[in-house]
Formats: sequence, structure tokens, C-alpha cells
Amino acid sequence: MSSPSKPPMRDALVEAAFRLFLERGYEQTTVEDIVTLAGVGRRSFFRYFPSKEGVVFPDHERRLAEVTGFLAAGGEGEDPVARVCEAVRLVLRLYTDNPVFSVQRYRLTKEVPGLRAYELSVVWRYERTFAGHLRERLADRPDGALRADVIAAAVVAAHNNVLRSWLRSGGEGDAGAAADRALAYVREAFGDGADRGDERDEDVVVVVSRRGAPMWRVVREIESALGPGERLPDRP
Amino acid sequence: MSSPSKPPMRDALVEAAFRLFLERGYEQTTVEDIVTLAGVGRRSFFRYFPSKEGVVFPDHERRLAEVTGFLAAGGEGEDPVARVCEAVRLVLRLYTDNPVFSVQRYRLTKEVPGLRAYELSVVWRYERTFAGHLRERLADRPDGALRADVIAAAVVAAHNNVLRSWLRSGGEGDAGAAADRALAYVREAFGDGADRGDERDEDVVVVVSRRGAPMWRVVREIESALGPGERLPDRP
Repeated sequence: MSSPSKPPMRDALVEAAFRLFLERGYEQTTVEDIVTLAGVGRRSFFRYFPSKEGVVFPDHERRLAEVTGFLAAGGEGEDPVARVCEAVRLVLRLYTDNPVFSVQRYRLTKEVPGLRAYELSVVWRYERTFAGHLRERLADRPDGALRADVIAAAVVAAHNNVLRSWLRSGGEGDAGAAADRALAYVREAFGDGADRGDERDEDVVVVVSRRGAPMWRVVREIESALGPGERLPDRP
Repeated sequence: MSSPSKPPMRDALVEAAFRLFLERGYEQTTVEDIVTLAGVGRRSFFRYFPSKEGVVFPDHERRLAEVTGFLAAGGEGEDPVARVCEAVRLVLRLYTDNPVFSVQRYRLTKEVPGLRAYELSVVWRYERTFAGHLRERLADRPDGALRADVIAAAVVAAHNNVLRSWLRSGGEGDAGAAADRALAYVREAFGDGADRGDERDEDVVVVVSRRGAPMWRVVREIESALGPGERLPDRP
């Protein structure tokens, strides 16, 4: 019979851990200290967290599962790069939904090399999840796996750039809007992951010309891009 | 007085370490075991390597310093993305110059989570070195830091994609040629890191048109892209 105001045991452990990390430092805090302050047994800790590092990033396992589910639920016709960009916004929200906690953890992570390494491995797992989705969806493209890996890394880097700025600022400003802009840059670079050069032939004509080029050359290039037999009409 | 054929102490330590890792497993081997087999004192080990993980990646510290120097030596007028692509080829060479060792280490790293984490932190340091160079060179671009981070991540991902394929194949094939191709994909996506959209205004006209568009619309778009007063010439 727990009262409604009492946080669940998992939250109590996270709260106790962070209170101790901030007071004594991360290295000086043991799992024993955490369970004592939270008033639970040692086994309870390991039911929720695989290690002391785990309590620092308590929600990533669940979010990783959600992200995997979100990606799998995407329709076949959907732009896979857009889907991955939406998925990374879910990861960002894990931070922005709780600015105070996120900024505390950021400061802790900067000071403790072991936590930095742990965080890199978390980021790596998101990146591989995104890459896995893209590899599947780009499987029939030339160099599909390469494209998938590169795009996944670019998406994660854009996310991290925005996240770090937001954390450094102490959690101020609209990280979501910044992320949309950063991800637009990535999408502009890669499109939907297809080689746009390949698709161009099907329905779009692109002509690039230096401003200084003589007009007859512009016309000739447009006609040659349009294909055999096509000519620009004479001025009516 | 060491004979010319006797490897230096550092190499002897790496050799002893790998012999033991392969025979007994990584976790079952202690630094004590390594120095005993190599016939040197414990202090010699720590003169060369910060930790047991360190002996698994013995050349990255030096290569990281070389990469940093190589980037700094680049001329001001040089394409910074091309420079970073050349730098990552130096990292690849660290693996391809010694296929047997690289493939052994790859198999070890796959089996030991701690080594995987260590490797991620090595990769991270290369990525931050590349990003630092690009941030400097793109500082006057809009969103220069974002571009730098995203391009650095894309370059590293292209490198890793090629490296992993090569390692999985047991060190067969021309990884250098594969890397050139993978990096060409990244450079195609990002150019020299500048927003090509910004530059376009200065000297190039781009017209994109659906193939189905009526010809008069194509003409009108070209004229409006060329700017006020410019008209396509009548057919001569």
C-alpha cells in the first residue's frame, strides 16, 4: 500500500543515487550507499539497473526499445531518413522532458571518464538501431549499407550537436526547434537516402549553369537534359 | 646492446599480450602474466600503456598525434572536407598495414565488451579531432559547428563501414579503394562543407523541373532564375 505521493522504488533509487553523486562525487559513492539512502535492499538495485553506471542513464533501455518499435511501425512507402529523424527526436525528448536531471547528469558525465565511455556505448546503440532500419530500407540501393551507416551517423551527430548546446546552456532554449533545423541540414544532404542522381532521370530535369555561360549553351544544355528530340519552344 | 632482430620492449609486450589473449582469453590474462612472458618488469608495461586495454590498441595515441599534425599542416585555401578524408585514410592504414594483427584484434574486440567500449572512445577521439578541424575551417559559415560535427561523423562512419567489411572478410581485398569510394559518397553529399545553396546565388543558376512540366513553365523558371531583365534568346 504505497501512498500516491511516494515515488516508485526505481525513481527513489535514481533520486538517492544522484543526491549522493552530487554530494560526494560519483566515484566515492557505492551501490551500498545508494540502497541505504533509498531504504531498499541491494538486490532491488540490481533488479532495475545492471551497474552503478546504469543508474546514471536510467531511461535509455526503455527508450531504445520504444525507438526500435517506432522504426518497425513505419510504413513501407515512408521516407526512411525522415522516420529516423523522427526517432531521434524521441531520444532528444528523453533529455528535454527533464531539464534539471539532464543538466545534472551532463555535468557528472563530463567529470567521470567511465560515465563518458558508458554514454558513448549508449549513443552507439541508438546509432546502430538507426543504421539497422536504414540498411533494411535501403537494401536494394547501390551501397545501401554504406549509405545507411553514414546517414545514421549524421543524424546522431546532428542530435548530439543540438543536445550538447542545450545542456551547456543549462537546459535553456528550444532544443526541439534547433533539432528540426539541424536534421533538415542532414536531410538536405542525403534526401531520402536514395542516390538522387539515379532518380533524377525518371521525372526531374536539373540544369546547372555558370551565370557567365553564353545563353546558347544554357539552351543546348537544357535540351540535352530533356532528352533526344526535345527542344525549347521558340518565343511565342 | 640489443641485436637488430630483437623487437623493442614495447613490441615484445604487445606480442606477449596477444599471445596470452588468444590462448587464455582477454579477461583471464593479467598485466602480471604479460610482463612475465615478455620478461620485463611491471613498471615497463605502464611506461608504454595506460592499462590492459591500452595494449590492445597500441598505436592509436601516436596516430592521433599524427592526424592532428596532418590536419594542422593543411593550407588555408584547401578544401577542409578533403583534408579530413585524407586524414581518415591515415587511420585506416594503421589497420591495413598489419592485417593479421588487425583481424586478431577485431575478433578479440567483438568478444570483450570492455574492449568494445575502449574502441568506441578511441573512435570518438578521432571524430572530435576531425570535427575540431572542420569547426575551425567552417567557423564563418552559418551553422559551421553543426556542419563540422555532422561531416566528421559521416567521414568516420564511412571509414568504419569499410574497415568492418575488411576485418570481417579476414583482411582480404583493397580497403583503400573501398574507402575512396565511400568517402566520395560523403564528399558528394557535403561538398567542401560550405552551404552550396549560399554560393549558388553568386555564379550558378540551377533549374529543377519535373519532366511533365509544360515547356513555357520551364522557360519562365529559367528566366526568373537568371534574374530581372534576362530572357532566353529566340531560336536563331
